[in-house]
Amino acid sequence: MIHNSTIDHQLSHRSIRAFKPQGLSDEQLTTLYEAARHTSTSMFMQQFSILHVTDPDKRAAVRRLSKQPYIGANGDLLIFLVDLYRNQKIRQAAGKDDGRLHTTDIFQQAVEDTVLAVQNTLVAAESMGLGGVILGSIKNDPVELIKVLDLPKMTFPLLGLQVGIPDQSPQLKPRLPLDTLVMENDYHRDFMASDLKAYDQVVTQYYDLRDANRRIDSFTKQIAGTKLDHYETTRDRLAAAIQQQGLALDWE
Amino acid sequence: MIHNSTIDHQLSHRSIRAFKPQGLSDEQLTTLYEAARHTSTSMFMQQFSILHVTDPDKRAAVRRLSKQPYIGANGDLLIFLVDLYRNQKIRQAAGKDDGRLHTTDIFQQAVEDTVLAVQNTLVAAESMGLGGVILGSIKNDPVELIKVLDLPKMTFPLLGLQVGIPDQSPQLKPRLPLDTLVMENDYHRDFMASDLKAYDQVVTQYYDLRDANRRIDSFTKQIAGTKLDHYETTRDRLAAAIQQQGLALDWE
Repeated sequence: MIHNSTIDHQLSHRSIRAFKPQGLSDEQLTTLYEAARHTSTSMFMQQFSILHVTDPDKRAAVRRLSKQPYIGANGDLLIFLVDLYRNQKIRQAAGKDDGRLHTTDIFQQAVEDTVLAVQNTLVAAESMGLGGVILGSIKNDPVELIKVLDLPKMTFPLLGLQVGIPDQSPQLKPRLPLDTLVMENDYHRDFMASDLKAYDQVVTQYYDLRDANRRIDSFTKQIAGTKLDHYETTRDRLAAAIQQQGLALDWE
Repeated sequence: MIHNSTIDHQLSHRSIRAFKPQGLSDEQLTTLYEAARHTSTSMFMQQFSILHVTDPDKRAAVRRLSKQPYIGANGDLLIFLVDLYRNQKIRQAAGKDDGRLHTTDIFQQAVEDTVLAVQNTLVAAESMGLGGVILGSIKNDPVELIKVLDLPKMTFPLLGLQVGIPDQSPQLKPRLPLDTLVMENDYHRDFMASDLKAYDQVVTQYYDLRDANRRIDSFTKQIAGTKLDHYETTRDRLAAAIQQQGLALDWE
């Protein structure tokens, strides 16, 4: 293993969900934005934006939809938007039609731009001693979220990032072993759940230490359990919400 | 602006497309994989894998499909896979059905896991003095790429990363100004292409310096130009390729 301060921060990443009451300084926020701004972008199309949500009512609304009490509580809330609105306006000003802007391909490129920027922002935050948690739960009810944030068509709220001064110090969560995660040339079709026996024990020990009252849990038990069971959820409005925004219209 | 070595690397990010002939050492590769492995993952589902493509025939095939001469040339080629195959096997071993594995929601969560890991890997590489370029072009013909890589259903090749020892030192590419990229509480519906007049001049100057023979180009000219014009492309097989893999089947 090679070590430097960047890698050491990456290897000790924990999602932080409890923050001190004070928000970030303008300088801290600007630094995060600059990191996001310098992220790789597909075909130089720069198809994402950041919405810094400071309005208490909007923060409360995002928290309610996300069903996570820490969202929009202490710390700063950034919503990363897939943003094709800007490029649509640029084409309109030049007298051009929307071209490929409504394709799944271009939407996917914008999704990738956006997610890359989220990770770069979190890396920057952690390098500054801040903590954060990436919020997929903002998409718990994407149609409602778009209303709450009053977003125009050609934009889509993809991920949130709650970031601030950590007020907790959680244990490092053990991840899948490298020989499961990384393959050379050929995909490991012969993977078996039993390959994760040792890893399951490590995960079980992690949960035991974190909460002795929690029932015994392991990685494979979680995957075989309710989180991937079929259930009804407004999260399944995702495709409809994307297309309502004028995006990925060629996906049938 | 706050500065530290992580942020300084982020702010000086350039995509590197020319590499020295030697590949990465095992230690360098392991360090990259460890950075990827420790990336945030939605609901602890860990739904991505990395395929390290060293086989010359496969590298050549990916290069041919991607139409970029530097792909699979010098340096190492990593293909980041959306991977729900593993979790499907885990559920099968437990006697469970596939539950939500075929939903757009879970596919999108896996896409986000995968893209976050790509960026974390690139950050780690750059912190070590390596360079890299994220390869959206591997999806130029996604149906063919899946064949070439012989990937099972429930996996999808999302992004590549060509990484190695830099053999070029490109200029920093100027990005959209912060006041265009970042908004507070309300989306800037009143954005106009003319807001980017000063930025366009900076981009034009960048291209002039890089290649004096290149026709005058700017950001808004590019967006209004061919890259977003409508054209026929195998990239539009994306949705079909995803669903062929058994993913996002509820997207109608």
